[in-house]
Amino acid sequence: MNQFGQIFRIQLFGESHGPFVGVVIDGCPPGIPLKEDDFKPDIERRKCGEKGTTGRKEDDIPQIISGVFQGKSSGSPITLLFSNKNIKPQDYKNFTNHPRPGHADFTASKKFNGFNDPNGSGHFSGRLTLPLVAAGVIAKKIIFPVTIHADLIEAGANQNIDEAIDQAISLKETIGGIITCNIKNVPVGWGEPFFNSIESNISHLAFSIPGVKGIEFGLGFESSKIPGSQMNDLFLDESGKTATNNSGGILGGISNGNEINFRLAVKPASSISKPQETFHFEHKEIQSLSVDGRHDTCIALRVPVIVEAIAAIALADFKLLANAFS
Amino acid sequence: MNQFGQIFRIQLFGESHGPFVGVVIDGCPPGIPLKEDDFKPDIERRKCGEKGTTGRKEDDIPQIISGVFQGKSSGSPITLLFSNKNIKPQDYKNFTNHPRPGHADFTASKKFNGFNDPNGSGHFSGRLTLPLVAAGVIAKKIIFPVTIHADLIEAGANQNIDEAIDQAISLKETIGGIITCNIKNVPVGWGEPFFNSIESNISHLAFSIPGVKGIEFGLGFESSKIPGSQMNDLFLDESGKTATNNSGGILGGISNGNEINFRLAVKPASSISKPQETFHFEHKEIQSLSVDGRHDTCIALRVPVIVEAIAAIALADFKLLANAFS
Amino acid sequence: MNQFGQIFRIQLFGESHGPFVGVVIDGCPPGIPLKEDDFKPDIERRKCGEKGTTGRKEDDIPQIISGVFQGKSSGSPITLLFSNKNIKPQDYKNFTNHPRPGHADFTASKKFNGFNDPNGSGHFSGRLTLPLVAAGVIAKKIIFPVTIHADLIEAGANQNIDEAIDQAISLKETIGGIITCNIKNVPVGWGEPFFNSIESNISHLAFSIPGVKGIEFGLGFESSKIPGSQMNDLFLDESGKTATNNSGGILGGISNGNEINFRLAVKPASSISKPQETFHFEHKEIQSLSVDGRHDTCIALRVPVIVEAIAAIALADFKLLANAFS
Amino acid sequence: MNQFGQIFRIQLFGESHGPFVGVVIDGCPPGIPLKEDDFKPDIERRKCGEKGTTGRKEDDIPQIISGVFQGKSSGSPITLLFSNKNIKPQDYKNFTNHPRPGHADFTASKKFNGFNDPNGSGHFSGRLTLPLVAAGVIAKKIIFPVTIHADLIEAGANQNIDEAIDQAISLKETIGGIITCNIKNVPVGWGEPFFNSIESNISHLAFSIPGVKGIEFGLGFESSKIPGSQMNDLFLDESGKTATNNSGGILGGISNGNEINFRLAVKPASSISKPQETFHFEHKEIQSLSVDGRHDTCIALRVPVIVEAIAAIALADFKLLANAFS
Repeated sequence: MNQFGQIFRIQLFGESHGPFVGVVIDGCPPGIPLKEDDFKPDIERRKCGEKGTTGRKEDDIPQIISGVFQGKSSGSPITLLFSNKNIKPQDYKNFTNHPRPGHADFTASKKFNGFNDPNGSGHFSGRLTLPLVAAGVIAKKIIFPVTIHADLIEAGANQNIDEAIDQAISLKETIGGIITCNIKNVPVGWGEPFFNSIESNISHLAFSIPGVKGIEFGLGFESSKIPGSQMNDLFLDESGKTATNNSGGILGGISNGNEINFRLAVKPASSISKPQETFHFEHKEIQSLSVDGRHDTCIALRVPVIVEAIAAIALADFKLLANAFS
Repeated sequence: MNQFGQIFRIQLFGESHGPFVGVVIDGCPPGIPLKEDDFKPDIERRKCGEKGTTGRKEDDIPQIISGVFQGKSSGSPITLLFSNKNIKPQDYKNFTNHPRPGHADFTASKKFNGFNDPNGSGHFSGRLTLPLVAAGVIAKKIIFPVTIHADLIEAGANQNIDEAIDQAISLKETIGGIITCNIKNVPVGWGEPFFNSIESNISHLAFSIPGVKGIEFGLGFESSKIPGSQMNDLFLDESGKTATNNSGGILGGISNGNEINFRLAVKPASSISKPQETFHFEHKEIQSLSVDGRHDTCIALRVPVIVEAIAAIALADFKLLANAFS
Repeated sequence: MNQFGQIFRIQLFGESHGPFVGVVIDGCPPGIPLKEDDFKPDIERRKCGEKGTTGRKEDDIPQIISGVFQGKSSGSPITLLFSNKNIKPQDYKNFTNHPRPGHADFTASKKFNGFNDPNGSGHFSGRLTLPLVAAGVIAKKIIFPVTIHADLIEAGANQNIDEAIDQAISLKETIGGIITCNIKNVPVGWGEPFFNSIESNISHLAFSIPGVKGIEFGLGFESSKIPGSQMNDLFLDESGKTATNNSGGILGGISNGNEINFRLAVKPASSISKPQETFHFEHKEIQSLSVDGRHDTCIALRVPVIVEAIAAIALADFKLLANAFS
Repeated sequence: MNQFGQIFRIQLFGESHGPFVGVVIDGCPPGIPLKEDDFKPDIERRKCGEKGTTGRKEDDIPQIISGVFQGKSSGSPITLLFSNKNIKPQDYKNFTNHPRPGHADFTASKKFNGFNDPNGSGHFSGRLTLPLVAAGVIAKKIIFPVTIHADLIEAGANQNIDEAIDQAISLKETIGGIITCNIKNVPVGWGEPFFNSIESNISHLAFSIPGVKGIEFGLGFESSKIPGSQMNDLFLDESGKTATNNSGGILGGISNGNEINFRLAVKPASSISKPQETFHFEHKEIQSLSVDGRHDTCIALRVPVIVEAIAAIALADFKLLANAFS
């Protein structure tokens, strides 16, 4: 299932080493200004390029091949393509038989009876987050003046991220991190009762980001440790503003007008420079596996803009749904 | 949106103080033995009745009103009804104007323009988890021999749960807790790429359980703090068994044949015995609010069986979907 | 799949000789006045009771068991139950082995591996159109001031319906009919491009009505026989009013502001008084089958109100979707 | 809504005079052989090129840009692109203010607040049926050994199609036609009860084909004119084979193992050579409109292969769904 959304719906496609990755966005309101340059800032943030990331040398400029007419969304499905220029299919040929620990090599091969494209993890590649970020750019325009800001606040258990990365590089290791996301200006009443709570839809999308292993809203896990009288956010005025915001701006799954905030845990990238002793499914014995090439030391550096994208995608759908009943 | 699922689909309905709460289950395979007694054990676990819970004095025996013929699922939608006997509509009349902190009173009223049923939180009541547990009983039968076990392992920051509850009762407080869930015997290959990863669908459903504020799979947040070489689970043999299980049995969103495990944070119940100083929307000033009646000291005691239910519901859908391609 | 709709969603359940048939309606806007009496007129029309129909002696008053608070829709799922009082399970026991020609006995039994409830056709019974009509009553309120009117204009190839029925009764036969449906006041712009055209969604729902074998919009089949210059509806004024309405009020799948009209063909009921020579699947030979009991001579008499219901259901969803983008 | 399907899901995109039209196919089983040549025969049939059609001079070879690895479906979404080479945007600029009768010019402009791409009807163009035919090629492989055959059996009320076209050309007219579709080898038990009957899903898709105004299954409208004793198809043997096939191979919405057959009415193309007197929305008066360029005299010539495609798409989804419960 590579689709998500009830009204604002996205459909991802593509493989890491195929000709393109892309996305079709169905249910985008007409009249939204949209040009290829609009995607640049968020795409640059995803590429990162900082110390601790590798990044393919690609422009990553989307081609808008449908759904935009004279610089505005037309109401028909918007399709964005990103070409994959830096393709080296031979790099990955062994991973089907000698699957990389922590990767989808093993599960993808089993699920698809060996027919999946294993090159660069194929459809399971982090490269699929590129069209996701692009869809997020459109979603952000739909939900304006709602603003979303995500940050990496910790890497490898270290709040000094630079230092953590330097240390990881010196140890030939990879590290994960903690990302926060804050969303302002959401009106009261977005989100749906029961299954499509704001938390449900955001977490659904968040766990599609490769490497995410946990999510918490408001005080999150900490809320399990404090008494109810401390947890409850007292209302202060007619707007619904609360004295504290332990609930993360969501009550009963629905926005209460306060800032929505959540935190994500990203695990370290699975591709590491060190050899790993892991089962070879053809040779039927444990053998040493080396994953060659350059590796992202801290893949979490790239994740904040992806988190913003998925939050925007979830909220765009909620906004349109709220419109439907207004 | 009170529906979930692609093939195995559930639709919840009802309000806390209406005549019934219930669920329609569409897409259940025919031929599954099903009688009313089958629901008893899980329903008893939800009712709990232990110190720290109140529990309405209700039998909570489901009426099966469709979809079962001669003791077996017939292939048509299964509808389960639970009658609400212990109804006191007058209890809740003030909460629309003086909404309880931490409750959905405020957001529900705003979202539905004041037309929502506020009695006992109406459709936002925890009582809706009763038909959810019942749907889980059916889902567990579908996924057999997969087994699911959830436990409350900590309450109010305290691993001695009894002591924590005694203390909370003496302080007239409520407390939350941490719940673990372990799932055995899931074959390799359940779950869908990208948006419908196992984590995505389980977390989607988990956040529809009132009070859940966080979820993590495998090492979860801890995985953001350790290096890749420690995080990666090395394969040991042809079955895909791994030396460690830091990923929680899921790679690329798809089951890898190891135990699936996740943890949930449940916040303390919002209804507390202490008065709270919170805005009165009619009087337009902050006033003291007392929430009368008996309160669950530790609502998390009731949550494990609900967690099992939502995990089973997510997996039943994945199993049927895996069948579709087999 | 007993669900339909993107925003306004209905879920049917129940069997002919189970305790209840019913419907859950999710995505109904809050604040719509709704009481049990509102359902009476349409339910009476479905019951018909005229010469040519039998009709079970049942009140068919719905119980509203969720989603309505103080006489108005609350925004949460509306559930309607109709109890089945006149149940005679023994009537139908043989039809699994000796399936009635033209009925779902054979296909239902094969599809569900014999686990389906065969009594009174179980979930395949025309009785399921009762909750469908009830859902239509709610949908009609949502789309007001759009009005829908359906009529039986021909029965058994005869425009004198009374005479046709008398003749059929005397011949111990059943007859079908032609139903027209006209919809006024639909604004320009309802309906969705490509797959969810107005024709697509109405026909989808129409073919779920037992006995419907054909549907045509505007000139329909006749449009295949006339030249383009006669077919095209010339625009007359700014409202989009056209000189003719051969397209049936729909262009490119989207309402053009003119009256929407379509026609349906209903086949004669399969249950006939005459014995039929048809294969006995246990005895493995062709044997005479008698279908006892009273039979509807002209089931098409009951269909107009069902057609109005499905049209209203389709349009309610389109209206909410149009709102989402307004 | 440019998506359809529960398991086998298609998402169309593109505009007539944009760079590409295409389709994403999600939920295709892995391991299905697929190369670009496989699409040629059906695409040629759609292009037609016979007397009575114009056809853009385009190769219409799809580019497979995702979802196929080493000549077989990989299990991830399959994306097909068709480039639009023969683009003349200036041709259509006036149709927004002076909309063509019978076209979507007026409704599309109103629905999308004037932001839609009007060139060549934009997303409402018949060119979108090209990726639909391509999706059908894949669906046909999935449902093998089911075979589907559609034919134009009548054009402009004339069974001598050649003659009808000659006459229409001489009159500068366009004509429609009647198409039959026969489907062999469908096993008993495909299709879903109530809303997703075989008729429901096929008609849903059929009415998304531009120009289709009616559909009937089996005897269709004729069935409303004959008595029940003639209509009922008597079972002959254990396979479910029937003496007649008036029901068109479907009972209760579910395949009964006999040939499935249905008929479609296609109206004449709206673009005609004759001038038409129709309202000019800017000049606010009725004015003569000439639609220049070459026109398809009988667009129905191209429709049979599109009908086969939508039938295959509907059945592929039903087959996978039947697998899910097997």
